[in-house]
Amino acid sequence: MKIHGRTYRSVWLDEDGWAVRILDQTLLPWRVEELRLETAEQAARAIVTMQTRGAPLIGAVAAYGVALAMRSRPEALAEAVAMLGATRPTAVNLRWALERMTARLTPLPPEARAAAAYAEAAAIAEDDVETCRRIGRHGLALLEEIAARKGCVKVLTHCNAGWLATVDYGTALSPIYQAHDAGIAVHVWVDETRPRNQGALLTAFELGAHGVPHAVVADNAGGHLMQRGEVDIVIVGTDRVTRRGDVANKIGTYLKALAAADNGVPFWVAMPHSTLDTRLTDGLAEIPIEERAAEEVTHLTGPDAEGTLRRVQVTAPGSGAANPAFDVTPARLVTGLITERGRCAASEEGLRSLYPERF
Amino acid sequence: MKIHGRTYRSVWLDEDGWAVRILDQTLLPWRVEELRLETAEQAARAIVTMQTRGAPLIGAVAAYGVALAMRSRPEALAEAVAMLGATRPTAVNLRWALERMTARLTPLPPEARAAAAYAEAAAIAEDDVETCRRIGRHGLALLEEIAARKGCVKVLTHCNAGWLATVDYGTALSPIYQAHDAGIAVHVWVDETRPRNQGALLTAFELGAHGVPHAVVADNAGGHLMQRGEVDIVIVGTDRVTRRGDVANKIGTYLKALAAADNGVPFWVAMPHSTLDTRLTDGLAEIPIEERAAEEVTHLTGPDAEGTLRRVQVTAPGSGAANPAFDVTPARLVTGLITERGRCAASEEGLRSLYPERF
Repeated sequence: MKIHGRTYRSVWLDEDGWAVRILDQTLLPWRVEELRLETAEQAARAIVTMQTRGAPLIGAVAAYGVALAMRSRPEALAEAVAMLGATRPTAVNLRWALERMTARLTPLPPEARAAAAYAEAAAIAEDDVETCRRIGRHGLALLEEIAARKGCVKVLTHCNAGWLATVDYGTALSPIYQAHDAGIAVHVWVDETRPRNQGALLTAFELGAHGVPHAVVADNAGGHLMQRGEVDIVIVGTDRVTRRGDVANKIGTYLKALAAADNGVPFWVAMPHSTLDTRLTDGLAEIPIEERAAEEVTHLTGPDAEGTLRRVQVTAPGSGAANPAFDVTPARLVTGLITERGRCAASEEGLRSLYPERF
Repeated sequence: MKIHGRTYRSVWLDEDGWAVRILDQTLLPWRVEELRLETAEQAARAIVTMQTRGAPLIGAVAAYGVALAMRSRPEALAEAVAMLGATRPTAVNLRWALERMTARLTPLPPEARAAAAYAEAAAIAEDDVETCRRIGRHGLALLEEIAARKGCVKVLTHCNAGWLATVDYGTALSPIYQAHDAGIAVHVWVDETRPRNQGALLTAFELGAHGVPHAVVADNAGGHLMQRGEVDIVIVGTDRVTRRGDVANKIGTYLKALAAADNGVPFWVAMPHSTLDTRLTDGLAEIPIEERAAEEVTHLTGPDAEGTLRRVQVTAPGSGAANPAFDVTPARLVTGLITERGRCAASEEGLRSLYPERF
């Protein structure tokens, strides 16, 4: 997508054809700076420090990390894969991407590995772009239908499920970008998404840089906006979907789903195939919820009037904080799932109709 | 209530018996400093600058401001009332307190007004304390019942409806203080309450200073906590209650009411008589919602590691924000109202049973 008129992906090959470039996401939205990665170690470090983040994206960056390793030491494939795999041990996409690289490269003689690794990493990145593009196309139909009735489509989204978390397009934001690029009037309500503020920082940045009209709102505001008819549709991403359609996503998603149901607002979840987990059924009972550091609630970092980044306390001194990072929205509150294969109901029947091979 | 062992009210007479003392709430929770008010002009300034805030409290401070005026210029009653009334033009309690002072003092000769004004201001403050104390007593019964079944009572609250907003006890927090002081184990989940963070700043400060166990959570977390059985009861305050029991309160209250209903968690509203507005019926249609400055969403102030207060930006540069300050929770989602006259259903029948003279 675009940053102030220039087209970007979140990972790409440099002009020399072998070094890898990413955006340093720890500096966003305050500064747009590119990082050049020349070694697998640099790629691993960029993942650990969250200079690159988002489940689909780190899979692609790790794959390019393997390619960089194969360029200098093609005999050390297992070593490179182990190092890159240790960066974010719980990320499903990361493991999947590294397994795909291993399967492709292991049978090859060392001298053939570098070229094959670049090709496979490019394929992984292109697969992600195509998945997100298709999610956008299937979601676009929903926005077109609303636009035909109402003119401007008012969408509410939570957290960041945009192109910065994938290679391009994003998941929940992909239909929005495609609608905007097709000339449909869109206005996006961007949930701030406390405590890490991915909405206020990354989603707002993405939408602003691409030129999509939007406004940040406190996470508290969405219910009120729906009561007043100010939201036509909610679209969010997901970290995991169970076989019956329960949806784990960033903390606070469940509250918006409740408000959507109470006000008759459609609540859609953009789900790439990689987040469907058919081993699980009951999301509330079976999905473990990560409890993160209290400091994410008690402190915030942002620039002061001079542009200097400052970390400030935002809770009463001495008060502790709890910080569950995700919640589970029961399938009964989900209008439907938008996937790269089309839309379906958030139910086992719905998912089975699109992904029969997974059941 | 107490601040680290010392008993406070939020407004009181100084030792000399005529000057008025308040806590400078603009410095809380970072510093506890008292302000001495010697003139009506100083009282007015403290209200305008929000050094003192909270609807019940500013009524009491304004009444004491009239007393200070009567001490120096008892013939200028109307002038003092007009000046104090202009500080926060929309506050119902402020107008009500000043009208009560005017009615009491106007018939008196100037030389009798100062003593009568101090007595009337004290009566207004005591009335507020007694109202809040009784709300606490009627709410305490709910907490005692839960404690008898479960041991520790886990309460979730939103915004600040504590003693800092009243003269003492608070409204929603009054049952919590009374339960804690009675030896009942209480744990309070304190909603941060974006964008002004009254929960993370004032409620957390109050509870911590009085010694009540609590943890701050992002506003996004409450639904998840209820799903996991971590909330036994929700108690919030209110800015206005309609004759049929619709409740206007800080933005985000409605989302917690939805989650409470979805999880079978009782949702109670602490309502002093002054917030019942029997002229209104349909809260959603009839209560205007204040839209406040975008800067409350886009910027935050807090101390850095050295203790220097810094104002930082917390949203992407160039992105706008919307900031509705209140929302309306329909009566159907409210388990009941806790008033100084007892508890009742959030309905016209319920309210009529406690306040027949208002209908």
